[in-house]
Amino acid sequence: MNDTFLRACRGEKVDFTPVWLMRQAGRYLPQYQKVLARSDFLTACRTPEIAAEITIQPVDVLGVDAAIFYSDITTTVVPMGMDLHYEAGKGPSYSNPVRTAADAERLIVPDDPAEGLGFVYEAQRICARELENRVPLIGFAGAPFTVAAYMVEGGGSHSFVNYRRMAFADPATYSTLMDKVSRHTANYLRAQAAAGANALMLFDSHAGLLGPQDYESLNLPYVKRIIADIKDTGVPIIYFGLGAHGSLGAISECGADVIGIDYGLHLGEAVKELGSGVSVQGNVEPHIFFQTRREIERRVVETLAGGKAARGHVFNLGHGVPQHSPVDQVRAMVDIVHETSQARAA
Amino acid sequence: MNDTFLRACRGEKVDFTPVWLMRQAGRYLPQYQKVLARSDFLTACRTPEIAAEITIQPVDVLGVDAAIFYSDITTTVVPMGMDLHYEAGKGPSYSNPVRTAADAERLIVPDDPAEGLGFVYEAQRICARELENRVPLIGFAGAPFTVAAYMVEGGGSHSFVNYRRMAFADPATYSTLMDKVSRHTANYLRAQAAAGANALMLFDSHAGLLGPQDYESLNLPYVKRIIADIKDTGVPIIYFGLGAHGSLGAISECGADVIGIDYGLHLGEAVKELGSGVSVQGNVEPHIFFQTRREIERRVVETLAGGKAARGHVFNLGHGVPQHSPVDQVRAMVDIVHETSQARAA
Repeated sequence: MNDTFLRACRGEKVDFTPVWLMRQAGRYLPQYQKVLARSDFLTACRTPEIAAEITIQPVDVLGVDAAIFYSDITTTVVPMGMDLHYEAGKGPSYSNPVRTAADAERLIVPDDPAEGLGFVYEAQRICARELENRVPLIGFAGAPFTVAAYMVEGGGSHSFVNYRRMAFADPATYSTLMDKVSRHTANYLRAQAAAGANALMLFDSHAGLLGPQDYESLNLPYVKRIIADIKDTGVPIIYFGLGAHGSLGAISECGADVIGIDYGLHLGEAVKELGSGVSVQGNVEPHIFFQTRREIERRVVETLAGGKAARGHVFNLGHGVPQHSPVDQVRAMVDIVHETSQARAA
Repeated sequence: MNDTFLRACRGEKVDFTPVWLMRQAGRYLPQYQKVLARSDFLTACRTPEIAAEITIQPVDVLGVDAAIFYSDITTTVVPMGMDLHYEAGKGPSYSNPVRTAADAERLIVPDDPAEGLGFVYEAQRICARELENRVPLIGFAGAPFTVAAYMVEGGGSHSFVNYRRMAFADPATYSTLMDKVSRHTANYLRAQAAAGANALMLFDSHAGLLGPQDYESLNLPYVKRIIADIKDTGVPIIYFGLGAHGSLGAISECGADVIGIDYGLHLGEAVKELGSGVSVQGNVEPHIFFQTRREIERRVVETLAGGKAARGHVFNLGHGVPQHSPVDQVRAMVDIVHETSQARAA
């Protein structure tokens, strides 16, 4: 197996810089669109053969060094008692948002992580089998702060005012909710490692909703607890807190092997703040796929230079692959990362 | 007139730390809701007496040290040829988004800044008259990068993919658009100073859409040009680039007298990066109005301490006043800022 990604996560010596892309399995791929034409989003997530097929597509098309499991973070908490709906064009939503102490009390943390989520582990077993001797599989979950944001709002939101009001005005309900989501998330990630995931990632897409002080008291403790809880799986753990630019020092202590950096910071500066105890993942501007090949090259070289001082560097975008990205440009970038970093290592 | 706000902007000695709040004129105020019950949003913006009334409300209710003119950044570019609509619950949108070179070419930069915007200056003349001997009036505009984002998307967007694609794939159209919006914005701000605005602010709500490198090439040059252009009005200029956490060093050179800091950074750290050439504005967590009086006090003390090393400090939130904020808590925070900073100055 090409284990370069895993080696970079652990800060071991590599012959080239490994690369994968957030949202590499997605709408910009014609192969993906073809699958989604005969299924809907939630059905695709919940049908192991389809989820596995979509997960593996970018490995074939792009030649990336890791597969990220195709799933949606909103599905995970359905066994906790959340009622999930999906409307085309509007995205997933919950019809029973968590707003009160009683709502939080009613939430279940299932003893068996397979309860209601067996399709995930089944899909990952298929992925692991089909990917054998190729590249590692990354399992993932939403970080509890981000997952709870959706649970309280009932879906996406511009202001997340209900959620933030709960966090600041009703700390007891907030901590009941976060505690339960965290325990369930740890069980969920542990079961993914058992099913064949070779690395585990926590996506904290809404980490930037809190400033540094509140991030440290209201978000980070739960991330730390989950990571401590799943550490004995032995697989590398990646944490990505989008927008939490003022909290890197604290994040470096969260226990993850790899810290994802978004495009909002200069990678070299982020590496300085994180120190030498962790590897980094990131962080090229995602919209470079709309630029010339020459410009893509320039940006790859710069991003590789920015990651050079880190313990290890997993090349990635600073956010997901944009919709409408030309596939040949995406593939070209993957090649450029491999070629440039190989030449440097030689 | 209580000119403490203007003195802090210029880094002059003050007897207490002045405070005003982004979105201080807004939905959380019952007085505002009463006015909006007999008008719609765009009509309120476009009727000088109503806009002036709403602008002055928070001065009466909260005792803040500056009034910010009540307006919406999307209205400014209507005279450029943008077709603005407003739908309750959906916000403002343009039916003729700027997507192509021809679209950008068609945009007009009116010679007379009063063309189509006379209601703004008329409202500001009323405000200046009614506020006389009380507090300064802040005029404002959206920064060109943020205004152009709406013009290209046709309204708000989650991904701004059309806009970002234009910025990266079609630099000629992007620069035509940004150049025209910048010239119009400078004319607009200059005319506000003539109408009675005592300070001018550029709101760059989408500054965080670009990483540091692209911010410096695609956004900052236009901000600099506008500020250089309006500098001879003699009024203090404030720039607020929400989310541009990696670009503070560059932002400190933009020419503004005051740099707004959002809640995503520790204020003291931001002051260190900005240096001693500018004053700062910010940056307490906006959702503290849902917390206890004691917690509000603690946060105010911390934020005042964070701003202490700056040339001057205008106290503000790190983002707008949240919907549903209890008015008595907002008023209490304003009082706490005055009392605490007065005690320190004494």
